[in-house]
Amino acid sequence: MRRVLYPGRFQPFHKGHLRVVEKLLREFDEVVIVIGSAQEGFTCNNPFTASERIEMIDYVLRSNGMSRDKYWLIPIPDIRMPLAWTTYVLSMVPRVDAVASGNPHVVRIYDWIGFKTIKLNLFNPSEYNGTVIRRRICNGLEWKHLVPEQVAQYIESINGVERIREVCGCGDHRD
Amino acid sequence: MRRVLYPGRFQPFHKGHLRVVEKLLREFDEVVIVIGSAQEGFTCNNPFTASERIEMIDYVLRSNGMSRDKYWLIPIPDIRMPLAWTTYVLSMVPRVDAVASGNPHVVRIYDWIGFKTIKLNLFNPSEYNGTVIRRRICNGLEWKHLVPEQVAQYIESINGVERIREVCGCGDHRD
Amino acid sequence: MRRVLYPGRFQPFHKGHLRVVEKLLREFDEVVIVIGSAQEGFTCNNPFTASERIEMIDYVLRSNGMSRDKYWLIPIPDIRMPLAWTTYVLSMVPRVDAVASGNPHVVRIYDWIGFKTIKLNLFNPSEYNGTVIRRRICNGLEWKHLVPEQVAQYIESINGVERIREVCGCGDHRD
Amino acid sequence: MRRVLYPGRFQPFHKGHLRVVEKLLREFDEVVIVIGSAQEGFTCNNPFTASERIEMIDYVLRSNGMSRDKYWLIPIPDIRMPLAWTTYVLSMVPRVDAVASGNPHVVRIYDWIGFKTIKLNLFNPSEYNGTVIRRRICNGLEWKHLVPEQVAQYIESINGVERIREVCGCGDHRD
Amino acid sequence: MRRVLYPGRFQPFHKGHLRVVEKLLREFDEVVIVIGSAQEGFTCNNPFTASERIEMIDYVLRSNGMSRDKYWLIPIPDIRMPLAWTTYVLSMVPRVDAVASGNPHVVRIYDWIGFKTIKLNLFNPSEYNGTVIRRRICNGLEWKHLVPEQVAQYIESINGVERIREVCGCGDHRD
Amino acid sequence: MRRVLYPGRFQPFHKGHLRVVEKLLREFDEVVIVIGSAQEGFTCNNPFTASERIEMIDYVLRSNGMSRDKYWLIPIPDIRMPLAWTTYVLSMVPRVDAVASGNPHVVRIYDWIGFKTIKLNLFNPSEYNGTVIRRRICNGLEWKHLVPEQVAQYIESINGVERIREVCGCGDHRD
Repeated sequence: MRRVLYPGRFQPFHKGHLRVVEKLLREFDEVVIVIGSAQEGFTCNNPFTASERIEMIDYVLRSNGMSRDKYWLIPIPDIRMPLAWTTYVLSMVPRVDAVASGNPHVVRIYDWIGFKTIKLNLFNPSEYNGTVIRRRICNGLEWKHLVPEQVAQYIESINGVERIREVCGCGDHRD
Repeated sequence: MRRVLYPGRFQPFHKGHLRVVEKLLREFDEVVIVIGSAQEGFTCNNPFTASERIEMIDYVLRSNGMSRDKYWLIPIPDIRMPLAWTTYVLSMVPRVDAVASGNPHVVRIYDWIGFKTIKLNLFNPSEYNGTVIRRRICNGLEWKHLVPEQVAQYIESINGVERIREVCGCGDHRD
Repeated sequence: MRRVLYPGRFQPFHKGHLRVVEKLLREFDEVVIVIGSAQEGFTCNNPFTASERIEMIDYVLRSNGMSRDKYWLIPIPDIRMPLAWTTYVLSMVPRVDAVASGNPHVVRIYDWIGFKTIKLNLFNPSEYNGTVIRRRICNGLEWKHLVPEQVAQYIESINGVERIREVCGCGDHRD
Repeated sequence: MRRVLYPGRFQPFHKGHLRVVEKLLREFDEVVIVIGSAQEGFTCNNPFTASERIEMIDYVLRSNGMSRDKYWLIPIPDIRMPLAWTTYVLSMVPRVDAVASGNPHVVRIYDWIGFKTIKLNLFNPSEYNGTVIRRRICNGLEWKHLVPEQVAQYIESINGVERIREVCGCGDHRD
Repeated sequence: MRRVLYPGRFQPFHKGHLRVVEKLLREFDEVVIVIGSAQEGFTCNNPFTASERIEMIDYVLRSNGMSRDKYWLIPIPDIRMPLAWTTYVLSMVPRVDAVASGNPHVVRIYDWIGFKTIKLNLFNPSEYNGTVIRRRICNGLEWKHLVPEQVAQYIESINGVERIREVCGCGDHRD
Repeated sequence: MRRVLYPGRFQPFHKGHLRVVEKLLREFDEVVIVIGSAQEGFTCNNPFTASERIEMIDYVLRSNGMSRDKYWLIPIPDIRMPLAWTTYVLSMVPRVDAVASGNPHVVRIYDWIGFKTIKLNLFNPSEYNGTVIRRRICNGLEWKHLVPEQVAQYIESINGVERIREVCGCGDHRD
């Protein structure tokens, strides 16, 4: 049985993330999705709590035909020590065979400890990008085409658009 | 859909824990098992990493006929601030309706924030007790009857008995 | 007896803050002023220590005819975990009935735990604003009309203007 | 105007503490009472939250004829770095001229940074002692004569005896 | 025997730093070089680990004729509490007589605790500047003339240029 | 060039430690001595600051004919996360080829990350033992034969015996 670790902040989980999970599940038996900056929420850069991100991703993956037997959702709070963070994460997830990431920092630090890494080639990273999506929401632009439809539904169910606009002060520049 | 939070250290997961999970699943749809002191491992009081505890519990629950659709395994590292810890945990797990615990400290702090609590009446807590089990392992006494057989198997597979005896310095007093 | 919590960084305490305290004291018996980022000082964003901010606010409030029986000054260092911070603060201040803030993030996180919140409509927030005041000091513009006169006196007594210009590197662009 | 710092855990505030505050106020204009381990509560060693300890001490001091103009109550959470703690505390309280303590560790670390210290000769420390008082409560022995009557009242008002017996597991050895 | 403390991040160690060490060693017997933000590495602002910075500086100083009897290299991780940081550092280095820095924040906080400080007049700080050097590397500009030749060699030996370009995303704007 | 890491608390540095350093230097070119719990000092379990421990060890090693070219003294504060601690330490010391320790916990956690470990067979660990030595000092028993003479001198020069007796409350049981 082979498992892969896939860390991210998922603010929010978008179509690029979904593609990665699908791809990893073609090569591994299980994917361990690590939800980073898990202690955050209700800020402009991290509007959603880990609780919400877990529910959001679980909803997407199950709606896309994946069983909970194939993925794990593990929240990891920040410790702000990147080299310590590598083994910190590994000690708190089911054993994995490799770490997959599109973030060069993450790949580099796991290379540094000699752990197997997979450098992901992200699909259209300038669009499928959390920062871009949050900015579009802030600016009142279209954003739902960038996320799986279940994410759009979930965000609406928790008034997430209003939340982002409020904590980012988007409305301040508009009215 | 109703969920309940069940926090513990599970060093190791024993028959008392299994009974609690079974009981909670008769009353709730899903149980969120929080693995506390998740940053620990290879010490006398916390011999097993969160990684191992996740695998151990998953193995027990599945072997006892439960589907991963019924339980969540969420590691939470210590922050050593009990009142802050209450909402820290709630912000990192899928939404729950109540917290169940046999630990009066845990029940009290969730009462303090006004969250619904369930005080568990533990079954034979002087035997089904992590501290007691670790001490029995240390002293070379019988311990396997206190844990589900999958836990005994798992601990053997990782040489857990030898590990406990070594990091607790058990052998030092014996030879 | 009814108390309200009023958190802020107060870098420095300005006329907008004073108005809020006066207003809250018309509705509550006591106001608990929480001085956030209390561990900071001598940086560009947090030039004043909590020690200085306590003295500064105490001086203003007493000079404006308020008795120490009406207000509490409680420093709270950052923990960088917003959802945990809610109960962290509540556990360290005298019991309060509500939290008042003009900061949507603060209001949202206390709403999230089900605590009573009061969303303050700030008076002229684009002028009565710590960031704006520090920038005006940095740029050598007039700023004393934005703070109570005791704050201006206090800042002078500790050479605060020179401090801000130095740690923000304001002089670097001037000479 | 001269101020003195007086740090302690005050679990609970007892007659020995009250004597110290009275003595210090004969020599200084104001006493800054630092409530240490402020992040704690509902544990056997730290049964009362900082919130409760603030209220308890304020109630005692006012009932004993002291005005809030004479004392400050400042909660300070643990950072577990004793030499850093010295300046950490000083940066978060109104300026003080000296630190007074009966705890040799506290006196030593402030001596180490060259700050003026006052080594208190405690009055009957084997009886007027938080650990002793909590143990007496746990064991069902008389304890109220060791604390000011307002502390006894306050503890009763929050069911503090039952709390201590529960979180310390006292009842377990009794029934 | 007289020692001086010289804190910095040294990302990387440049010719301005070398001049300071040489100057301090003309006035003191030993210099204690504190490598700040020691927990960092492989990020855009802190590309080099403390491990690498220790090796890099040791290599430069020895190559420039200094003996290890004259300098200490001490890594100090961030605690993000500036006033506590002052004594935190002093408690972890061999005793020093003064702190030397070109950073006004550092000078100010040590002044605050009453420790002797030396305000360094930096040599050409707009060029001999870590931020500037990292930016030049990122932009593909010449940078080696700004650092001692051993630093340039060391950075090459660990593929540091490629690392900076990757974790800062420099290449993203180039291709 | 081959280096080995040797972590310990060194409260105080005793003859067993010196033997280990001498032995390691017969097999390696340099030894990196990591001074753990570096943030501590003036407590019963950690009476000496890292500053003092650095000076004490440096004095012993030089007096025993070792050059600073052969050893490094690196203080590391606790992070209370053992699996993260492994790479935390490695990222802050000059590159090493192996970790040597007589502590099974330390050996086990470095084994866990796949780093080369050397399990030291300690010489007479029931006597050459920091806990034992501090207890002997507390109880007024002979202890100087257990430490290198320079350590005894150093401890005397800082009034270390009196310090231990005071912060451990040894005198309380004696008078």
